[in-house]
Amino acid sequence: MKAYRLTAAQHAEIVDVEVPEPGAGEVLLKVTGAGVCHSDLHILHIPEWPMIPMTLGHEPAGQIAKLGPGVTGWDVGDRVLVYLCWGCGQCYSCASGYENYCRMYKRNVVPGPGLGFDGSMAEYVIAKARFLVPMGDLDPVDSAPLTDAALTPYHAINVARSKLVPSAHAVVIGIGGLGHMAVQILTATTGARVIAVDVAESKLEHAKSLGAELAITSGPAAAEEILDATDGRGAEVVFDFVGAEPTLRLAADTIAPFGQIVVVGLADATLPFVANGPPGGLPWGAGVVKPYGGTRADLHDVIALAQRGVIRVTAERHPLANAAEVLKKLEDGKVAGRAVLVP
Amino acid sequence: MKAYRLTAAQHAEIVDVEVPEPGAGEVLLKVTGAGVCHSDLHILHIPEWPMIPMTLGHEPAGQIAKLGPGVTGWDVGDRVLVYLCWGCGQCYSCASGYENYCRMYKRNVVPGPGLGFDGSMAEYVIAKARFLVPMGDLDPVDSAPLTDAALTPYHAINVARSKLVPSAHAVVIGIGGLGHMAVQILTATTGARVIAVDVAESKLEHAKSLGAELAITSGPAAAEEILDATDGRGAEVVFDFVGAEPTLRLAADTIAPFGQIVVVGLADATLPFVANGPPGGLPWGAGVVKPYGGTRADLHDVIALAQRGVIRVTAERHPLANAAEVLKKLEDGKVAGRAVLVP
Amino acid sequence: MKAYRLTAAQHAEIVDVEVPEPGAGEVLLKVTGAGVCHSDLHILHIPEWPMIPMTLGHEPAGQIAKLGPGVTGWDVGDRVLVYLCWGCGQCYSCASGYENYCRMYKRNVVPGPGLGFDGSMAEYVIAKARFLVPMGDLDPVDSAPLTDAALTPYHAINVARSKLVPSAHAVVIGIGGLGHMAVQILTATTGARVIAVDVAESKLEHAKSLGAELAITSGPAAAEEILDATDGRGAEVVFDFVGAEPTLRLAADTIAPFGQIVVVGLADATLPFVANGPPGGLPWGAGVVKPYGGTRADLHDVIALAQRGVIRVTAERHPLANAAEVLKKLEDGKVAGRAVLVP
Amino acid sequence: MKAYRLTAAQHAEIVDVEVPEPGAGEVLLKVTGAGVCHSDLHILHIPEWPMIPMTLGHEPAGQIAKLGPGVTGWDVGDRVLVYLCWGCGQCYSCASGYENYCRMYKRNVVPGPGLGFDGSMAEYVIAKARFLVPMGDLDPVDSAPLTDAALTPYHAINVARSKLVPSAHAVVIGIGGLGHMAVQILTATTGARVIAVDVAESKLEHAKSLGAELAITSGPAAAEEILDATDGRGAEVVFDFVGAEPTLRLAADTIAPFGQIVVVGLADATLPFVANGPPGGLPWGAGVVKPYGGTRADLHDVIALAQRGVIRVTAERHPLANAAEVLKKLEDGKVAGRAVLVP
Repeated sequence: MKAYRLTAAQHAEIVDVEVPEPGAGEVLLKVTGAGVCHSDLHILHIPEWPMIPMTLGHEPAGQIAKLGPGVTGWDVGDRVLVYLCWGCGQCYSCASGYENYCRMYKRNVVPGPGLGFDGSMAEYVIAKARFLVPMGDLDPVDSAPLTDAALTPYHAINVARSKLVPSAHAVVIGIGGLGHMAVQILTATTGARVIAVDVAESKLEHAKSLGAELAITSGPAAAEEILDATDGRGAEVVFDFVGAEPTLRLAADTIAPFGQIVVVGLADATLPFVANGPPGGLPWGAGVVKPYGGTRADLHDVIALAQRGVIRVTAERHPLANAAEVLKKLEDGKVAGRAVLVP
Repeated sequence: MKAYRLTAAQHAEIVDVEVPEPGAGEVLLKVTGAGVCHSDLHILHIPEWPMIPMTLGHEPAGQIAKLGPGVTGWDVGDRVLVYLCWGCGQCYSCASGYENYCRMYKRNVVPGPGLGFDGSMAEYVIAKARFLVPMGDLDPVDSAPLTDAALTPYHAINVARSKLVPSAHAVVIGIGGLGHMAVQILTATTGARVIAVDVAESKLEHAKSLGAELAITSGPAAAEEILDATDGRGAEVVFDFVGAEPTLRLAADTIAPFGQIVVVGLADATLPFVANGPPGGLPWGAGVVKPYGGTRADLHDVIALAQRGVIRVTAERHPLANAAEVLKKLEDGKVAGRAVLVP
Repeated sequence: MKAYRLTAAQHAEIVDVEVPEPGAGEVLLKVTGAGVCHSDLHILHIPEWPMIPMTLGHEPAGQIAKLGPGVTGWDVGDRVLVYLCWGCGQCYSCASGYENYCRMYKRNVVPGPGLGFDGSMAEYVIAKARFLVPMGDLDPVDSAPLTDAALTPYHAINVARSKLVPSAHAVVIGIGGLGHMAVQILTATTGARVIAVDVAESKLEHAKSLGAELAITSGPAAAEEILDATDGRGAEVVFDFVGAEPTLRLAADTIAPFGQIVVVGLADATLPFVANGPPGGLPWGAGVVKPYGGTRADLHDVIALAQRGVIRVTAERHPLANAAEVLKKLEDGKVAGRAVLVP
Repeated sequence: MKAYRLTAAQHAEIVDVEVPEPGAGEVLLKVTGAGVCHSDLHILHIPEWPMIPMTLGHEPAGQIAKLGPGVTGWDVGDRVLVYLCWGCGQCYSCASGYENYCRMYKRNVVPGPGLGFDGSMAEYVIAKARFLVPMGDLDPVDSAPLTDAALTPYHAINVARSKLVPSAHAVVIGIGGLGHMAVQILTATTGARVIAVDVAESKLEHAKSLGAELAITSGPAAAEEILDATDGRGAEVVFDFVGAEPTLRLAADTIAPFGQIVVVGLADATLPFVANGPPGGLPWGAGVVKPYGGTRADLHDVIALAQRGVIRVTAERHPLANAAEVLKKLEDGKVAGRAVLVP
């Protein structure tokens, strides 16, 4: 079968590989859609990725093609999404439903398809039956990005959910693949007032059409505009889907006391957290956190929202053969919403 | 009356002032104990404190001497502690019980006695009736530090309480005035396993007698010892009651994924929070927060714990006249537990 | 001034009374709107109401006409809503923001305007400044019911909020004054799928226009229809805004395991809670609770939702002089949404 | 092998059966201890139990004797406890960590060993690897009851944990197998003040030795004594480990407003929940819930507490051959703490 694989550090290409065999407790999935993510670019930029070769793609939608030994409760033909964080299933974190912070991996990231195991930019992919979630009647291509582009912001929002009351403001910085889902999820599941921030006017328009009440252009005036909109106090929650120097600075300058900055973006900037509080640091009571992925229950929840039409991935489709071009397009900031590869 | 007052920036002394008159909704308290805190030193070191002159002291215990107009529900002679954060009482934060993050003060700290208003290092102090909490049969001197030295760690623990399950570890760095209360409150109100860290052997012994299961000496080996004690994962919560470069570094090196660093100490160090996660930054899912003070309900709770003998301030008493010497002693790290001034 | 007063048990009438004087910490409000509630009928049906005479009306909107001594932070002319539950402000519950469960009243209900104090069906009403919340630019008549008809369902939803995830169902039984607000608040602040139940087709249509995805007619088939819509499991949360025998039975028959029944309606039925679980009782893990009123923070939140147009009271206006007729109309089930008296 | 089996409705006996074979994903355990529970009596009293024959015993401790196909991460010889609620592992509830409310079983109870599958009153028992939790260095006999007698109260406490602050009271009615664990878990993991209630003086003494601050003898004066101890308000949480008419009545008479009654006992009484609040019903804001079992994470937590010696099962050992006599002894109320069968 064809697969888009990391064959050397910082190098990926379409290659031919054997269709894999599902082991005990596993299934073979025929991939119907494979979402393309900034994290794929991130992996391609890392000088020493620990697993080579590895098929890329951590947003798989597919149909069960074959059941491995001992798999019950699933049938060939079932249409499913694959959960991102392949925890051990046994430790305290996994037992609590937080497989994205599985204790077996100690202080390291929890691997998943395309992130330590062969991923979904291929005709077939292997997954443990435990990591499947039924997609119901969702589109088998466009739903693929729900597994990360919706899961990750949904989890990021959950991390700060107790602060997202109707009297609160939520700032979303960066209205890309994840940010445009965050605006929708905030609108659909919280009463907070949503403020979108981006450099591109078109993305701000997009955000407003998805539920943002206010849209602010990135730049030197953005902090003051947010403070004006929040009675001088700042927003109770700021989501940074970029993670660059100016966006982290904006987050720090506009987070309210007792507020929560949630950093999701992978740009390599650093926020200096000052111990003796303001001045210089965040206002008192404020914090910053960097969640990862989401839980399996979170994936059920985003699928429920999508099935009811309350959230929707803005997706553009491309053939798997064009994987490299699509990644380039993403890097150039030319993808609106999310790109999905179709094998 | 005598009062220990900031009469110029970076200068405080005992002076004579008029006994103040309680206004509408206020009471006059005869001070029975005034706790001495590192924050007092912090104020004395600030080049430009906004309110001069100001009587120091933000840990007041006292007895009602006079009721201002319109005060109901209190009588002359009632023994009370005074709550620290004098919020407006009307905004969303105050209505929610979070007066320590009162919205009226926008992004600034909420003032209190000795922190923007005249404080308790005096024979009398004024407080709004709303900020009083009955001390019951607690000692009218030794209970004074509950208002901050117990309140602040209690609130800091509340901020991370959902993570403090029996399967979790809690590291307490710095077993001084606040840290020795934190160890007790963690032991009394959570099932987490407590690890104490300090440079002084005597303070570690103190921590063990108060409920810490493990005591680790600060230094180059501390991080590894904590990782060894936590199966290589780190602690789910790390409280830093120092806030200096090495303690923040230790916190970062020993916080578990999805863990929470809670910085309380006022040393002026900075923790670099890296956007693209580890390596270099905190493990995935981890966050850092800097709470301030506590809520009025928190003060009720620490009083309840103290009345039942579950927590206890280790206090040493000094006459008010010796305020300057006591502050010097505190700065030299020679106070065990908490010093209290008695007018 | 004119006031609609309970002058004897089970008897109310419009009478002339003196305009009251605000005491220390109080304000005099010129009433701009006074919502009419089933609880008013409830009071009129109680054989021995403890406070006679008493002006009815616990949903006041008004404008400050006079400040009592010691009131700060408010001006004559300010437009405000009045919070419902006049707690002591000092106990643990009040300090936590739960004045609706004030400990000073021990096991009894917390009184408020028209519920133990003179209420808002009058030209003027007295309130402590602490119980005012700014109404912003809301309509000074139509916003009155927010103080109870929106506050009470908002609080009822908060009590069960942790269960109202996107994968959950919320059943709302009774689409009257409170129920029609509950549907809107659930839609605006949670991701749960809302199912409305009522006897009247017109109210079901109303519910659908406000966000309910499914509308089910009360009757023998309702339970099965709800089970069909929830995969045989039932709804994670059922709100009963009636409290009668058949509605409580429906709640019990359709609550999911680990679900929460929230009873708000004041009909006098009883749900038998069986200790040894099903059969006969609720499914395992399910519970039932009867919240009261809401918190001051809840009132801020419903005002925030109303100001952004996310929720809206369907209100009909009547002159104060017609109070008796309006109550009769309410009793006959002929009020759509909420009636408001205008002095 | 020998097994104590339900061979007909309301009849159990020791019989010889084949040692079972572990299937895919399963392990065979050599039973080292099998706790004996009131639920076993309950099953023996049910006129039509759906699974006959069935080996009783839902509190298994054991050692892995054989691995079924596809089991990884476990070795022969590993010492484990077995989790009680064998959920599907795939639904929303299971993904959230709440396998005890697995959605696959719709409105019915989730089965487990000795509760729908062959249980642990035998020389060997089969369990899915997913349901094992390492027991560490705990005693392989005495630790068996942790799987239910500690798990169930721990979960019951978790259901009400947010209310168990230091300013709160927790009443525990019934200091038997589960109640004596509840007292310890409350003491170890919350700051609430614990009040124990029982008919037997010896059990009250036991409760006090385990952390209860107050012990009250069941009877006509108990409600008033509890109200006296709680300033007339009642306790924020009441746990009923009996579930009989007088204990439910006591719970209703002593629960505070906004409090939570948690019913765990299986006696067949009924609490009338009155819709229109007090009088007649619970105080406003109070609720009642009937949790079931616990989560796998809860089992990790109780094991963590037991390993640190913070909680301890009071256990008495009996040979498996004496199962019938031990159940009789339990029925007669003559077991102190928990009985464990040793094959």
